[in-house]
Amino acid sequence: MKNIVILGSSGSIGKQTVDIIKRHPDLFKVVGLSVQSNIKVLEKQITELKPKVVAITDEAAAKSFKDKNYEGIEIITGLDGLEYLAAYSDANIVLNALVGSVGLKSTLSALKAGKILALANKESMVAGGAIVNRIKEESGATIIPVDSEHNAIFQCLVGECKDEVERLIITASGGPFRGRSFNDLKSVTVEEALAHPRWTMGPKITIDSATLMNKGLEVIEARWLFDMPYEKIDVVVHPQSIVHSMVEFKDGSIKAHLGKTDMRIPIQYALSYPERLPSPLPSLNLIEVAQLTFEKPDIKNFPCLKLAFESIKRGKTYPAVLNAANEEAVDAFLKKKISFTTIPYVIEKVMDEHEAGNELDLGILLEAERWARSRAREVIDLH
Amino acid sequence: MKNIVILGSSGSIGKQTVDIIKRHPDLFKVVGLSVQSNIKVLEKQITELKPKVVAITDEAAAKSFKDKNYEGIEIITGLDGLEYLAAYSDANIVLNALVGSVGLKSTLSALKAGKILALANKESMVAGGAIVNRIKEESGATIIPVDSEHNAIFQCLVGECKDEVERLIITASGGPFRGRSFNDLKSVTVEEALAHPRWTMGPKITIDSATLMNKGLEVIEARWLFDMPYEKIDVVVHPQSIVHSMVEFKDGSIKAHLGKTDMRIPIQYALSYPERLPSPLPSLNLIEVAQLTFEKPDIKNFPCLKLAFESIKRGKTYPAVLNAANEEAVDAFLKKKISFTTIPYVIEKVMDEHEAGNELDLGILLEAERWARSRAREVIDLH
Repeated sequence: MKNIVILGSSGSIGKQTVDIIKRHPDLFKVVGLSVQSNIKVLEKQITELKPKVVAITDEAAAKSFKDKNYEGIEIITGLDGLEYLAAYSDANIVLNALVGSVGLKSTLSALKAGKILALANKESMVAGGAIVNRIKEESGATIIPVDSEHNAIFQCLVGECKDEVERLIITASGGPFRGRSFNDLKSVTVEEALAHPRWTMGPKITIDSATLMNKGLEVIEARWLFDMPYEKIDVVVHPQSIVHSMVEFKDGSIKAHLGKTDMRIPIQYALSYPERLPSPLPSLNLIEVAQLTFEKPDIKNFPCLKLAFESIKRGKTYPAVLNAANEEAVDAFLKKKISFTTIPYVIEKVMDEHEAGNELDLGILLEAERWARSRAREVIDLH
Repeated sequence: MKNIVILGSSGSIGKQTVDIIKRHPDLFKVVGLSVQSNIKVLEKQITELKPKVVAITDEAAAKSFKDKNYEGIEIITGLDGLEYLAAYSDANIVLNALVGSVGLKSTLSALKAGKILALANKESMVAGGAIVNRIKEESGATIIPVDSEHNAIFQCLVGECKDEVERLIITASGGPFRGRSFNDLKSVTVEEALAHPRWTMGPKITIDSATLMNKGLEVIEARWLFDMPYEKIDVVVHPQSIVHSMVEFKDGSIKAHLGKTDMRIPIQYALSYPERLPSPLPSLNLIEVAQLTFEKPDIKNFPCLKLAFESIKRGKTYPAVLNAANEEAVDAFLKKKISFTTIPYVIEKVMDEHEAGNELDLGILLEAERWARSRAREVIDLH
């Protein structure tokens, strides 16, 4: 029996994790849950899963919940609750499905406590990859990526030797605006950008998917998760999203992971690893799929992807700055303060003004992020 | 340093193996070579590779070779030489690239001697799979398949648990006559059938590739190599031949092996396993490939594939009988005695008349093969 803590249990990944856990009550037990403010979902999950501890980061939401007096459940409020849950003594696996760079501290906390970390929080690695890897090495903890691309690469590397890897090939759907020119993209509205054709995701990730920054963040994440230099990471556009990513080895062999586009497959793998459990879905029928296509990513019209590569090329605190500036720019776009194509403009400007610090020092990293956010907001206001 | 014996060194696989070995003189040393009668190629290989022992199965060819008096090289003649070489004490790896069911005894000899067997001889497994697996188990020897499809599956299974395999998916180019009707195929000439569009192969394999029997033999081979029931083996037509085969796991994950269609990649892997060596070729560029397609195999117009599945469904000596009848029928087609579509007719007729024996007894197996050949020749003559 594996005891599991879910950080961010009311989000899309959190809910799908609960679905997987409920299918295997003999194998998995939820011991802890965290939400920001979605008390309604939390209450439903408490009834179903009977956790020992819950964390609610939004203080107001926490107050209304506490009033309800759940007996026998430890309730923690505020952001510190996340770190407490991430290191919770009864947990074997911590699934970090927090959104944004708030997830970094929980990642570090889980690793320090030697947990198996099922990582769905991109920003932990994007902002703090170097620190995360150092702590991981010191503690000997394991990270299993949940993101479908990284989970695919992780699976392709099972039984293989890292030194024999020639290249990681991350697939990208190309986003809803694939094929459009930069000029065309200037007039993209929030409504258009949120009408993503393939998956239901939160607004931040949906916009990242439309700008291709989502893929850029995945490149940075892959750089740290698999300890690969940026020169060994490629992105290929594959609109069918059947091939979830690939690894090329030095002998010319490429291993690819294919499957249905359903996050429950990588989530389940992250929980069951190194074993596999029966699929929650019918098999992928390749004859029905019939065709898989591959094309070059369009970095001219979608400069966010180029900026992400640039950030790992520069290294140090640049990826954290890119990520923080992107969060601010996307927020401003969603609030209709800036246009779709101003998003990369803001990020590039902030990156170019940045004086990099040592990414291995958490204080310097957080300070760089704070600076990037504040500078991004200024650039947005002045635009 | 790995010492290697190549059985069938003057054929296509044999020559490509020599090419790989010459690229890595620090890792591989040829200690033994066998040819049927191609003395010219053998002499060139002796000069280049300086083996300790050579076997020439054709007695007339052997005589002309002996006259030349190679000093310090042990020369063995006749079919027994193959078994001697397969168990040669100085060899670590035996690459069996013999063509036809003559390869079975060498396979058994290599396994009994505890060699690593790099297996390119399909018929060993097709005819004698059950016996081969028993001997392999008893001796604890390893078989690494060289055939690109089985090598792909072998690679996809590295680090994985066999019990978690849901399905092996063998890809097929579909052959040069894909899309044609059975009626159309009746008039296919030997010349047309030998003008295979993709690879240069011997005439027997080229015809098997056109009838899809080649894929059928691979299904039977996979059944034994990976110890999978026939219900867990599928064939999917993939004309680009970039995906060399796939494994579906029970959690819905599919692992695929992709690469250029060059036999030197699987040959090198079979020799270097568990390590990988630098590729003899430039990387596969998926963006240039652009498109991969998948479709259902056409067993109505290409009944040989169906007959192969039928043979493992019936089990026992049926696959050996199918293979022997096919060898005779293809030979008759090449000699213009029968039409292209009579090939499956002959095989089906011989299979239907066959009274199966225990496939674990080599004597019974060889007797079933002898009977099948002789019966096939009668059916051909009477046709």
